[in-house]
Amino acid sequence: MDAVAARAGVHRATVYRRWGDVGGLLADVLDAAGEDDWRPPDTGSLRGDLAALNHEIQTALTARPPVVAALIAASFRSEKADRAQQRLWEDRYARCEIIVSRAIRRGELAPRTDARRLLIASTAPVYHQLVLLRLPPDPRLPDHAAGTAALAASVGAFAEPPSAGDT
Amino acid sequence: MDAVAARAGVHRATVYRRWGDVGGLLADVLDAAGEDDWRPPDTGSLRGDLAALNHEIQTALTARPPVVAALIAASFRSEKADRAQQRLWEDRYARCEIIVSRAIRRGELAPRTDARRLLIASTAPVYHQLVLLRLPPDPRLPDHAAGTAALAASVGAFAEPPSAGDT
Repeated sequence: MDAVAARAGVHRATVYRRWGDVGGLLADVLDAAGEDDWRPPDTGSLRGDLAALNHEIQTALTARPPVVAALIAASFRSEKADRAQQRLWEDRYARCEIIVSRAIRRGELAPRTDARRLLIASTAPVYHQLVLLRLPPDPRLPDHAAGTAALAASVGAFAEPPSAGDT
Repeated sequence: MDAVAARAGVHRATVYRRWGDVGGLLADVLDAAGEDDWRPPDTGSLRGDLAALNHEIQTALTARPPVVAALIAASFRSEKADRAQQRLWEDRYARCEIIVSRAIRRGELAPRTDARRLLIASTAPVYHQLVLLRLPPDPRLPDHAAGTAALAASVGAFAEPPSAGDT
């Protein structure tokens, strides 16, 4: 809060008046991050898109200063930051579903593919390694996790059963 | 710290004298958890072992009171708890490698399979969904994430290249 006040050239009381506490400030930071026009990479292949996305995630999680990592850590301490972090993730994964619909259009995947499960399978190992296990970044992991998910998808691992209305 | 003191029937100052702070207390809790004789499930198949492991993880992460979830959250606040959590995870993943060596012995997997990567691919979606995304538990996710990892493994996704010494 002090750093924010100093950077803005205002008294710290002004910062506390505006946001109440650190959680409120971080929630606004996270909500602002969701208002950008970020789009997932479009490389021309499922595997390429997933790998480029994983590289973006690994870069963000290992950046200095560790803004993204600090926001995730803060979301364990503040209810407001927690909800904002969840909104941001939901927004990002929703935007990424186009990776799967493009792959379906290209004929790389079956039309009934569970996009969210596929995206989680591809990205989760990168988060797990860096945020929870807190291991040093493995430069091959983004490509490897993406390749594994794309390979599993190509053999039907994320195929949804036909819905009841289908004949 | 107060609850621990009350439960132990001692003054809270005694608890602080013994552990210094909450992080020190949690680090000892985590280290004690690593001293059990836990072994990964042995169901007779790779897919079965991974699924049973994922069910154990999902059960632990959604238990009431949320002891495991609270320890993970605390590891973001305390350096000591963080290091203890890392030791515990390293210990658990190391013990789980037998799942992969049994599958190799049964002929389910190629001899050169990267056990750790396979285990992370299988377990990461469960942690990601519950600890980071904080979505409600999906009862099908443990089986699905395990099945996806086993399927990817069966088509060579975790095969290691022959080492330089091989001919």
